[in-house]
Amino acid sequence: MALIVQKYGGTSVSDIDRIFVAVRRIVKAKSAGDQVVVVVSAMAGETDRLIKLAHQASASPGAREMDMLLSTGERVTTALLAIALEAEGVKACSFTGRQVGIQTDGAHTNARIEKITAERLKDALADGIVPVVAGFQGINQNSDVTTLGRGGSDLTAVALAAVLAADRCDIYTDVDGVYTADPNMVPSARKLLKITYEEMLEMASLGAKVLQPRSVLFAMKYQVPVCVRSSFTDDPGTLVTKEDKEMEQEVVSGVACDKNQTKITLVGVPDQPGIASKIFSAIAEESVVIDMIIQNIGQAGLTDLSFTVPKGDAERARKTLSKLKSELGVEAIGLMDNIAKVSIVGVGMRSHSGTAAKMFTTLACEGINIIMISTSEIKISCVVDAKYAELAVRALHEAFELGKTPARAQWAAKRIGKGKIAGRRNKK
Amino acid sequence: MALIVQKYGGTSVSDIDRIFVAVRRIVKAKSAGDQVVVVVSAMAGETDRLIKLAHQASASPGAREMDMLLSTGERVTTALLAIALEAEGVKACSFTGRQVGIQTDGAHTNARIEKITAERLKDALADGIVPVVAGFQGINQNSDVTTLGRGGSDLTAVALAAVLAADRCDIYTDVDGVYTADPNMVPSARKLLKITYEEMLEMASLGAKVLQPRSVLFAMKYQVPVCVRSSFTDDPGTLVTKEDKEMEQEVVSGVACDKNQTKITLVGVPDQPGIASKIFSAIAEESVVIDMIIQNIGQAGLTDLSFTVPKGDAERARKTLSKLKSELGVEAIGLMDNIAKVSIVGVGMRSHSGTAAKMFTTLACEGINIIMISTSEIKISCVVDAKYAELAVRALHEAFELGKTPARAQWAAKRIGKGKIAGRRNKK
Repeated sequence: MALIVQKYGGTSVSDIDRIFVAVRRIVKAKSAGDQVVVVVSAMAGETDRLIKLAHQASASPGAREMDMLLSTGERVTTALLAIALEAEGVKACSFTGRQVGIQTDGAHTNARIEKITAERLKDALADGIVPVVAGFQGINQNSDVTTLGRGGSDLTAVALAAVLAADRCDIYTDVDGVYTADPNMVPSARKLLKITYEEMLEMASLGAKVLQPRSVLFAMKYQVPVCVRSSFTDDPGTLVTKEDKEMEQEVVSGVACDKNQTKITLVGVPDQPGIASKIFSAIAEESVVIDMIIQNIGQAGLTDLSFTVPKGDAERARKTLSKLKSELGVEAIGLMDNIAKVSIVGVGMRSHSGTAAKMFTTLACEGINIIMISTSEIKISCVVDAKYAELAVRALHEAFELGKTPARAQWAAKRIGKGKIAGRRNKK
Repeated sequence: MALIVQKYGGTSVSDIDRIFVAVRRIVKAKSAGDQVVVVVSAMAGETDRLIKLAHQASASPGAREMDMLLSTGERVTTALLAIALEAEGVKACSFTGRQVGIQTDGAHTNARIEKITAERLKDALADGIVPVVAGFQGINQNSDVTTLGRGGSDLTAVALAAVLAADRCDIYTDVDGVYTADPNMVPSARKLLKITYEEMLEMASLGAKVLQPRSVLFAMKYQVPVCVRSSFTDDPGTLVTKEDKEMEQEVVSGVACDKNQTKITLVGVPDQPGIASKIFSAIAEESVVIDMIIQNIGQAGLTDLSFTVPKGDAERARKTLSKLKSELGVEAIGLMDNIAKVSIVGVGMRSHSGTAAKMFTTLACEGINIIMISTSEIKISCVVDAKYAELAVRALHEAFELGKTPARAQWAAKRIGKGKIAGRRNKK
């Protein structure tokens, strides 16, 4: 008997029919003797409907009120799914984030989980009840509702799986797994059967949109095996897990593309100690997350400083910087919107050289200019003109031969041949 | 400076435009130096939408889940109204029932308020913040969301007004006050400027639909002056308050009609002590509220027992009784749906005789047969065939000359003439 956390995204609970598809999946797991904890998102479209209403009421609705507003969407789904489960003879009970003891910090709309008691969850499981938990939300110390940011339901699911020491956390979504590249951009993109937390984290951060990055971090920290699966099929999906020997054989696992960034450039920044600190502290106070930072060596004691922020935060960052402009002695602030960050990711990069060179050469061959470069142990990212994004992704996908079935996939296929379906059972 | 609780019903917050009408009203009260606590219902249509979804998921959705589901509607409104207030420069903060400390019993979908701490409300008021409270809801001892039954937002408003010792509780709705009869039935119906709690209670219970009966009881108990007003006009509305001398001059204040009842008849009930107790205890256990009860004297130790219940509860009551049928030795159970309860209400009845006779004569003159009769100190109700409901109401309205401006209204008009608008200021 395994304990499984199943998370259903918005498209997987978009109407009552879809909710009953989830019900059947839960019933199947129960019949197989597993214990199931369900985490749900708001029904597809609901969050956007509420956001639209809020923006009709105000150009800049307050964060606390947005949390009060948006947290209702998940609650509706929990109640409906619990009602549907009961209708099928399964004992079920809906819970809010507060009710399962998800305590967060006070950062409304982007709160961090500080503690989870999960007492009522454990009680429910002990009583044979399927708990249906509202994802995306918790409460802060004032007992006000907080939300965990876009995709926060993934985080709820992974965090509950960690707290309950679940055997697996299944993320049901509208894609059937993690691909070597976005199949819409690259027809030859291949679904991965396995991927490491580190790779997934880079993929998620880089805009692969499959899993919320924070939930991957959380899964990595607590070693929760996460399975990304389609709620529309019985495909085993992609298992996100810790690194194993087979994985190291590949250099690059996937190509990601993120068009949701804006490059901000501060022109003529005095080249003095403490300036960068002032700039980024001010932006951090606005809870804007900075991605890449580049400082060019300038002349006459002046330097240009460029960094990227999520598109939606760019205006806020610009305003904050404008206030500091004269204090810092900055000449100008420029925003560049039409950019894309293209990245290659793979744990094998650690032990291979020449990967970066191959990437830059590939882009150069296509006549694509590189605007910014950033690297990590297992990732290389290049910012390019947005119009070249698809071309860059396709070229890199081909250059690193990602469309071919590599050693790792062959290994996984072998396991499937043995009747052990990779991605369905925890292989830790 | 007065402290006013303003409650906005579903039609008064049905969209963002309507919400801004409420905002302007709140701003006006604040500008006049008043403190305002706002209580809101779900946006018109939202509760029905959610109920429909629940019924798509199950023929008989559980009560706890229904509360989880429906309580979201009011929360959405609180957030949107708070956002709109902030957009107009008014400091505002949304609160759930739980957050203002509304503790209820465990009767899901029809919970009773046990305690209200209102601490956060008091803090907010002290800080000059307009609290916007979700009506209709509280939490039980398990910290699960409960709801207070249809129209429960009225109860929330009145209860908060009582706890805060507010100067007045304004109920903004889509009618501009309490009328001598339903204006849709009786064109000559006249709006009352004042009505006693007792009369309002009878009117509300009898289907006048303006105020939830429990909220009137609560207002009476704690002597909260309640004003029923239209959110579409600046009409002073109807003040519901305690009895004063002027009021006693009238015998009948209004005629009410309730078509939402079903008559249940138990035929051949053994005429023994304890039988009625068994019957009504069983029904009470199902939380079905009984209205009128009539026991006919029968023959051979058998009697017929008739009573009325809300239409929606009739089937549940019948099922419960069916289980008891053989145990009790009841011959048959009959349901009669097509009935209407027509009532005249007035505190003056206490000191006047002949009112009942006049009512029965009026109905007889129209050829309307009376099926059941029930009376209280300030009310006489007759159950008649539903098809005669409108005719009965019109005839009674005319017979008691309710279309004419009576002494009480003249008195109120005089006060208005003096610049003191009855129904806008507390005259206790």
